[in-house]
Amino acid sequence: MAQGLIEALTQALQRLPGVGPKSARRMAFHLLVRDRDGGRRLGQVLLEAMERIGRCSQCRNLTEQDICAVCSSPRRDHSLLCVVESPADVQAIDQASGFQGLYYVLHGHLSPLDGIGPEELELDRLTARLGSGEVHELILATNPTVEGEATAHYIAELARERGIRSTRIAHGVPMGGDLEFVDGGTLRQALLGRRDYGA
Amino acid sequence: MAQGLIEALTQALQRLPGVGPKSARRMAFHLLVRDRDGGRRLGQVLLEAMERIGRCSQCRNLTEQDICAVCSSPRRDHSLLCVVESPADVQAIDQASGFQGLYYVLHGHLSPLDGIGPEELELDRLTARLGSGEVHELILATNPTVEGEATAHYIAELARERGIRSTRIAHGVPMGGDLEFVDGGTLRQALLGRRDYGA
Ligand SMILES: [Zn+2]
Ligand SMILES: [Zn+2]
Repeated sequence: MAQGLIEALTQALQRLPGVGPKSARRMAFHLLVRDRDGGRRLGQVLLEAMERIGRCSQCRNLTEQDICAVCSSPRRDHSLLCVVESPADVQAIDQASGFQGLYYVLHGHLSPLDGIGPEELELDRLTARLGSGEVHELILATNPTVEGEATAHYIAELARERGIRSTRIAHGVPMGGDLEFVDGGTLRQALLGRRDYGA
Repeated sequence: MAQGLIEALTQALQRLPGVGPKSARRMAFHLLVRDRDGGRRLGQVLLEAMERIGRCSQCRNLTEQDICAVCSSPRRDHSLLCVVESPADVQAIDQASGFQGLYYVLHGHLSPLDGIGPEELELDRLTARLGSGEVHELILATNPTVEGEATAHYIAELARERGIRSTRIAHGVPMGGDLEFVDGGTLRQALLGRRDYGA
């Protein structure tokens, strides 16, 4: 049936975040009418990626290897460990900041109401990592949300018990932002975190 | 390489219309972290659709068959032929309007500046169809654009030469629209196309 496969494609495209029925239909027709090569390429890469990309055995980030390129790099500072919630955070920090330490990806945050506790986040893996003696500073880069803060707090305690220094990324007014459009909570954090000018 | 396949997936997703680097990355991570089944399903359906969906030998609409479900339906009025620019137009008209005739999909419009003439649109196929004696009315449902109007004009002439009546879909104020936000060209068409009230 004609409707069958086109409809199936339209449905499957809606598994993509932010894609509703209308844009899914537009995408399906675009590929079928104008870009079959693009459609074939996307199909192949999707199957290959879903099959071959797993999690790094050390940092839990997405990788095709057992140990990812970041963890296995000798040029990285292995005494600095930056904890983030998602692989997207690793990419954002690595592309923007020149950070040269290692990462640890939680794949989420503590959220008791959703039944996500330390076990669901496999925090025993992180605990074992902290016990190895290699990490000297743990940078808490979870999101500035209630759950992210609670998760940072919990993990800082794990570090403290092992005598490891933990730091939290700074919160404040975004660069290039206009003060009047910054929300109150951020402004409060920006004022609390103020530093000597010119220091 | 970890970056390799994730990057390849992010690139491939940008072949979808309306998807830039940022949303492509978000889509890739979403599938890899949260919805591998969805990613696999989309990959399979894409490959199958690109492989198996072709064009109906009668109406040129997308279909998995040689002749599509609309063209082969005995319940359709085969004397009414509605000419549209794209498969999306067929779907829109068929879902919304209760139209029970057949379609003919041009897959574009005449556009001399882009080198798209009657041959590029394979209008000889439509001419042959008009010569079969089956079509009594040709409904011109090309888009209300300069190119769509020129295309409608050209095809109406083909019909006229064969003694077939051709009609144009009405242009006017969209239902539920607010007059003050309707553009001037549409308002002019709406006034020119006015009818007796209550008739
Ligand atoms: Zn790693
Ligand atoms: Zn057909």
